[in-house]
Amino acid sequence: MAAERRGDFTLPGEAGYEKLTLEMAEKWGADVIRDSDGTKLSPEITQAGYKIYSTICIIREHNAFAEKHPETQQQCFLCSDPVTASRESIEIRPLDGYFDEQFRLNDGEDALPFWQVWDRTENRLLPADSWRYADGTITVTGCVPYHRYSASFLCWRIWEEINMYNHTTNNWTSEHLRQLDPRHPAAWDYLRSWLEKWCEENPQTDVIRLTSLFYNFVWIFGSDLRRRTRFTDWASYDFTVSPAALKVFEREYGYALTAEDFINKGKLQATHRPPTAHKRDYMDFIQRFVAEKAKELVGIIHKWGKQAYVFYDDSWVGMEPYGKYFASVGFDGLIKCVFSGFECRLCAGAKVPVHELRFHPYLFPVGLGGLPTFSEGGHPEKDAMDYWLHVRRALARQSVDRIGLGGYLHLTVGQDAFNNTIQEMADAFRKLKDLHAHGAPAELPVTVAVLHTWGALRSWTLSGHFHETDRNPLIHVNEALSGLPVKVKFISFDDVRNGALRDADVLISAGRAGDAWSGGDAWKSPEVVSEVTRFVWEGGSLIGVGEPSAAEGGDTRFALAHILGVDQDDGSYACHAPWEFMTEMADPFFVAGESVGKTEGIRLTDPDTRVLNARGDTPVLTLHSFGKGKAVYMGNFFYSPAGARMLLEMLLYLTGTDGSAAGLTDYSLAECAWYPETGTLVVMNNSDQAAEVNVTLPFGTVQAHTEAEEMRFIPVRRG
Amino acid sequence: MAAERRGDFTLPGEAGYEKLTLEMAEKWGADVIRDSDGTKLSPEITQAGYKIYSTICIIREHNAFAEKHPETQQQCFLCSDPVTASRESIEIRPLDGYFDEQFRLNDGEDALPFWQVWDRTENRLLPADSWRYADGTITVTGCVPYHRYSASFLCWRIWEEINMYNHTTNNWTSEHLRQLDPRHPAAWDYLRSWLEKWCEENPQTDVIRLTSLFYNFVWIFGSDLRRRTRFTDWASYDFTVSPAALKVFEREYGYALTAEDFINKGKLQATHRPPTAHKRDYMDFIQRFVAEKAKELVGIIHKWGKQAYVFYDDSWVGMEPYGKYFASVGFDGLIKCVFSGFECRLCAGAKVPVHELRFHPYLFPVGLGGLPTFSEGGHPEKDAMDYWLHVRRALARQSVDRIGLGGYLHLTVGQDAFNNTIQEMADAFRKLKDLHAHGAPAELPVTVAVLHTWGALRSWTLSGHFHETDRNPLIHVNEALSGLPVKVKFISFDDVRNGALRDADVLISAGRAGDAWSGGDAWKSPEVVSEVTRFVWEGGSLIGVGEPSAAEGGDTRFALAHILGVDQDDGSYACHAPWEFMTEMADPFFVAGESVGKTEGIRLTDPDTRVLNARGDTPVLTLHSFGKGKAVYMGNFFYSPAGARMLLEMLLYLTGTDGSAAGLTDYSLAECAWYPETGTLVVMNNSDQAAEVNVTLPFGTVQAHTEAEEMRFIPVRRG
Repeated sequence: MAAERRGDFTLPGEAGYEKLTLEMAEKWGADVIRDSDGTKLSPEITQAGYKIYSTICIIREHNAFAEKHPETQQQCFLCSDPVTASRESIEIRPLDGYFDEQFRLNDGEDALPFWQVWDRTENRLLPADSWRYADGTITVTGCVPYHRYSASFLCWRIWEEINMYNHTTNNWTSEHLRQLDPRHPAAWDYLRSWLEKWCEENPQTDVIRLTSLFYNFVWIFGSDLRRRTRFTDWASYDFTVSPAALKVFEREYGYALTAEDFINKGKLQATHRPPTAHKRDYMDFIQRFVAEKAKELVGIIHKWGKQAYVFYDDSWVGMEPYGKYFASVGFDGLIKCVFSGFECRLCAGAKVPVHELRFHPYLFPVGLGGLPTFSEGGHPEKDAMDYWLHVRRALARQSVDRIGLGGYLHLTVGQDAFNNTIQEMADAFRKLKDLHAHGAPAELPVTVAVLHTWGALRSWTLSGHFHETDRNPLIHVNEALSGLPVKVKFISFDDVRNGALRDADVLISAGRAGDAWSGGDAWKSPEVVSEVTRFVWEGGSLIGVGEPSAAEGGDTRFALAHILGVDQDDGSYACHAPWEFMTEMADPFFVAGESVGKTEGIRLTDPDTRVLNARGDTPVLTLHSFGKGKAVYMGNFFYSPAGARMLLEMLLYLTGTDGSAAGLTDYSLAECAWYPETGTLVVMNNSDQAAEVNVTLPFGTVQAHTEAEEMRFIPVRRG
Repeated sequence: MAAERRGDFTLPGEAGYEKLTLEMAEKWGADVIRDSDGTKLSPEITQAGYKIYSTICIIREHNAFAEKHPETQQQCFLCSDPVTASRESIEIRPLDGYFDEQFRLNDGEDALPFWQVWDRTENRLLPADSWRYADGTITVTGCVPYHRYSASFLCWRIWEEINMYNHTTNNWTSEHLRQLDPRHPAAWDYLRSWLEKWCEENPQTDVIRLTSLFYNFVWIFGSDLRRRTRFTDWASYDFTVSPAALKVFEREYGYALTAEDFINKGKLQATHRPPTAHKRDYMDFIQRFVAEKAKELVGIIHKWGKQAYVFYDDSWVGMEPYGKYFASVGFDGLIKCVFSGFECRLCAGAKVPVHELRFHPYLFPVGLGGLPTFSEGGHPEKDAMDYWLHVRRALARQSVDRIGLGGYLHLTVGQDAFNNTIQEMADAFRKLKDLHAHGAPAELPVTVAVLHTWGALRSWTLSGHFHETDRNPLIHVNEALSGLPVKVKFISFDDVRNGALRDADVLISAGRAGDAWSGGDAWKSPEVVSEVTRFVWEGGSLIGVGEPSAAEGGDTRFALAHILGVDQDDGSYACHAPWEFMTEMADPFFVAGESVGKTEGIRLTDPDTRVLNARGDTPVLTLHSFGKGKAVYMGNFFYSPAGARMLLEMLLYLTGTDGSAAGLTDYSLAECAWYPETGTLVVMNNSDQAAEVNVTLPFGTVQAHTEAEEMRFIPVRRG
C-alpha cells in the first residue's frame, strides 16, 4: 500500500537495491533519495525522478592529503594523569592512559611553547626551566616532596572520531580516516577545490547534506577498556584548538589563551559547567570562524546550482542554530536526528528555510546505545514507536518541513512491522504539517522562561541526546515542555538583568549545584536575585527543580530560598532544626508521584510552605506563596507522559489559566492539540491501552475513542 | 543480696525514702550518697556513714538577685529572619519567631551599639544611620528593592535553659529559674559569697558536685511548636557573650568582635563547622575566663575542707577537659554522664584525680529522648543494658575510678530487674577497676590518629551524646575505637604540620564536605596534603570515611583522592567517564555490610583501586595501595559490634599486625581484653545469643562459653 500522500520524506537509497529503493520510496511517499555513510546511489536511483541528497563530511576522507600534510590535521590539548613526587625529580609520559590510535604528541616547535607543567597540589604553574621534554618524556626537577605534578600538552588527533567510534564499536577493519583543520590555509585551499571538483562531478545531486562541518564534538578515548571513553561532551569546543588558532585569538582579543584555559585542572570545560570568561570569548571566536568558512562552502555549493543542508550532529561544533552567526552562513536547510521532542523543537525553531528531522532508528544493525535494532533480538518498529511518541507531541506544537531516515535500506527487507510503522508515521506527519500550514494550534497565554547559563544558545538541548544527559533534571523539563501548549523561551542570566522576565509568566530553573543549568556563581549577582524576587513578588511564578540557584557564600544555599520556601542543607545548617511538616494528601496538580524525585537535604525555610509530597523526612514537591506570586519546588523531575501532564497542571495552577483554551483531556496519559483554523482536534493517546478521552475545548467537550498509542485526527464542528 | 564488694559507687539518695536509700546503698555497694536536681538528703541519710556529694548549679536559683540586678543576667546574639524589601522602607521585629519566655531584647545603651542590620542579598552591613530602633521595632530606610534584610541584636536570656527544657518537656509549673553571668562583678561577688555561705551551712557535704559551671550549651527555642528547638549545639560558645565580654576581648586581643562573628549570616558557628580565626580567639578568651573563675570557686570549696567535682554537661561551656586551662582549675574530680563508650574514654583520659561516670538511665519518668523509662511502657533494665554494652568495652580498655546514678531513687521501687542489672554492672565495674589496678590490658602496637579541625580539644566527642551527633560518621568511628586494643589520639591540622604523624600508624579522617570533622578549607594547605601523602607513601595507612579531605578549588574533590584511589563527583566530573570496576566477592577484613554505607558520587581515580563492596554503581568500601602504604575508603560507617570488629580487622590488615597480642576472638560479635599481669581474660559477648568463643592469645587459645550479653572474667593459666 502506498503512502496517503507523497512528499516531505527523505529515503536512504542503496546501490544494488534499486528495486527496493523505489518500492520503499513509493510506500513511504518519499520525494527525496539520499546516500548515507557507507552507501552509494546508482544511476537507476538518481535518474528515477527523485530529488537527490548527497552526504559529504567535508573534513574527512582525505587521508592522502593528510599523510602528505600532517601539519594540517586537527589537534587538542590533553593533560597527563598527575604523578606524585616521592623524589626530587619525576618523569611524566604525557599520553600514558590515552588511546594511542587517536592521539599523537605534537612536540613541534610551534606547539611546545603551549605545553605546561603544573604543581596540582598547590595549583601552581611551573616555570618553563623546571622541566624538559625529550623523546616522549617530560622530566620535572626541583619537585616539592609529595606534591603532584601534571603536564598539559598539545597532540594531533589522528583518527576522525565518528570513524573511530564506528570502528571500535563494530570491529571495522577499514583504513582509519583522518580529519583536516580548515584553520590551516593549505587544508582550506585543498578542501575548497575538492568541493568545487565534487560539485562539478556530481550534477545529479540537488542538495549537499553536510555531515556536519569541521570540528567534531569531543570524544577522548583511553587506552584501558575499563575506561574506553575518558571524556565525551557533545558541545565542547576542545577539538577546535591549534597553535594557529591560539595565535589568531591573541591577535583578535588582545590576550593569550593558555593550555589551562582548556585543561582546567584536568576537568576540561564541559558544557554542563558554567564557562569561564575566556571560554566564552573562545567560543565566539570559533563560532565566527566556523560561520565564515561554512559560508564559503555554501557559496561554492550555490554556485553549482545546488542547495546546502547541514546535519546538526557529529562535526557541528561552533554551528549552534541559535548562535549569533548561524543565519549568516546561508544554509538552505537544517537536518536534526531526533529521539525526542526537544530535538524536534530545537530544529523547528531555527531560522533556516527547511527543517528536516532524521528519525531513529538508523537503518543499522545496532543502535547508538549498542543494542540490536536491525539484527537478531532487535525490534526496530518498537524503537521507532517509542521515539515517535516523544516526537509527535512536539510536532503537534510546531511542525518541521520534512522527515526522513538514514542508513542501509536493505536492512528493511522482511521488516514489515517497521516498514508499516514508518508509513503510518510519515502519513501522520504529513497531516500534521498540513494542519500547521492552515494555522497554528491554539496556545495558552502562558510564557515559560527557562533560565540557565547558556540561555538561547542552548535552546531545548543540554548537549547531545536525551539519554546522554538524562541525569540532568532540565532535559526532562525540556522534553515535557516540548509538547505543551505554552510559549517557551530560553534565557540567560544576562537576559534576566536585561528585563527578559518582563514578558514571562513562569520562570523555570532546573539543575544541580554549580552546573551550567542551575547557574552556579551567576546566583551571586544581587541584580539577578532581586530581579527574580521582584518577578515573583509582583505575581510571576517560579518552578525550581533539583538544586536551583544553589551558590556558595549566601545566607542560604539556594539564592531563591526565600521565594521557593525551601532550602538545602549543605552542612551549614548544622544544629539548626528544620520545620516539621505534614504532607498534604491531595494537591492542586494531581501529583504524578513517580515523576518527582528527591534531592538530599531539602528543608522548609517557612512554616507556610505547603509540602505536597515527601520521601521520608525530605520534601520533594512543595508550593509556596511569595508576594502576589507562587513557587513550586521539585526535588527532581523525570519525564513521562504523566509527568508532562503534571507540569501542565502546575503551569495552569500557578498562572491561574483555563487550560481548555488549548484543549484539555480528562485523561492524564492523553494529550491533544487544537487547530482552530481547520477545526481539527488531534488527540494523542500516550498509553499502551485504548482509552475514551474527553477533551474540553473553549466551546464544549469532544469525546474520542483512541487506541493504544494512537494519534487521532478529529474534525470538530463547533456547537 | 548485697554487692560483692562495696565502694566506687555514687547513689542518689532521697529524703523521705531513707530506708530505701540505705537498702539500695547496700545492694549496689555505694560508698557515696548524692542529692540530685529535685531531691534533698535528710539527716538520717547524711549521717549514715556515707560520703556525701551535694549538687550545685552555681549560676541558677538566684531569682531574687536576678530580679534586683537584671543587668547581671546572661545574654546572647540572635538574628531576625530576613525580610524582603518590597518597599523603600521595611520594619523588622527582631524577636519574631523566638520563644518569648526565653529571650528579651537588650536595647540598653551598652547593647544597641552592637546591633547590626545586614543586606543579606549582597552580604553588606548597613551603615548605622540607615535604620532606627524604637519600641521593639527596627525601621530600615533606603532599602534596595527586593533585597533581603536581617537584624542581629543582643538579648537577655531570662530562663535558664535546663530548667526551661524540663519545664517544657514535663509541663512543670514552678518558677522559671534565671541565670547570672559571672562576667558581671556584682554577680560574681554575690556568687562567691553565696558559695561561702553554702559551704558554711552544709558541713555534712564532702564533695560539691558543680553542675556544671557558668555557661550552658546553646539551646535556642522558637515560638512555633513546629520548630520548638531552632538551634541546639552542645559545644557552642554563643551563650557566653555580653557587651562586657566584648569590651574585655577588644582590650585583650586588640580588635573588636562584632555581632556577625557570632551570627555568621544567621547560621551561627556550630561546632560541626570549622571555626573562624575570630571564633578561635574568642573560645580561648572564654576558656581562660571560665578557668579563672572556676579556680576561685574551687579555692573557696577547698578552704572549707570539701572537694570540688565538676559534672561535664549542661553549663560546661569553656571547660573542655582537654583544653589548655582545665588542669589549672584544680578540680578534684570529673563526672561524665555516659550512654556510650566514647564518653567513657573522654572521661577516663582527662587529667584530674577522680574520674566518675554517671550511668543512664537517669532515675526519671522519661529519658532524654522523651521516651518512658521509669514510667508506664518503660524498660529501664533494657536501657541500662544497652548503654552498658557500649560502656563496658571502653572500660575494659581504660578504667575510671567511680560510677553512679542520678535522679529520684524512689522510682526504683518495684524495679527488681533494673536494680539487679545495676548490681551486676557495679560488681563487673569493680572487677574491671581492680584488674586495671594491677596493670593495663594488652594493647596492640598500633597508634591511630584521628584528624579533625578541633584536634585534642574535642577528643572522643563531637558535641553532645551519640544520638545527638549520629549523622556524623566520625562519632561511629570514635565509638568503635573506644573499645579496640589500640592507642588513639586526636590531632588537628596544625598537629599534622608539626609532625604528629611521625608516631602514628593509621590516620583516620571521617566527615562530610566542609564540616569540622572532614576539615573543609584546612585541606587547601599544601603542607597538610603533602605531609599526609608522605605518611602513607612511606608506609602509613589512611582510613577515609564519608567525604574525607573534601575541599573546593583542587583538581580533585578529595584532597587525598590520589591516596584513597577514589574521588567524589561533585558535578565537576561532568562528561568524564568513571572507571568500570568489579566488586570483589571476598575481602581481607570480612566486611560487615550493614556497617558500611554509601556516599553519592564516589568513583575510582585509579584502575588499581580494589572495590570490596558497592551499592549499585557506587563503591562503598575500597582498598588502594599508595607507595609503601595503603588506604581504605568507606562511604559511611555505622557503629555496631560487627562494625567495630571490621574496623579492628582493617587496622590489623593495614598495619600488618598480629591481633593475638591483645587477644582476638573467633566470633565477630564477641570482644575481649587480656590483662597479662593478673592472667585474666575478659570476654564480652555483644550479641543476644549465647556463644562458644575461642580467643587466640600470644601463647595459645582459650575457649569460653558466654551467655548472651555476658561479660565473663576468665583466669588463664599460661601453657
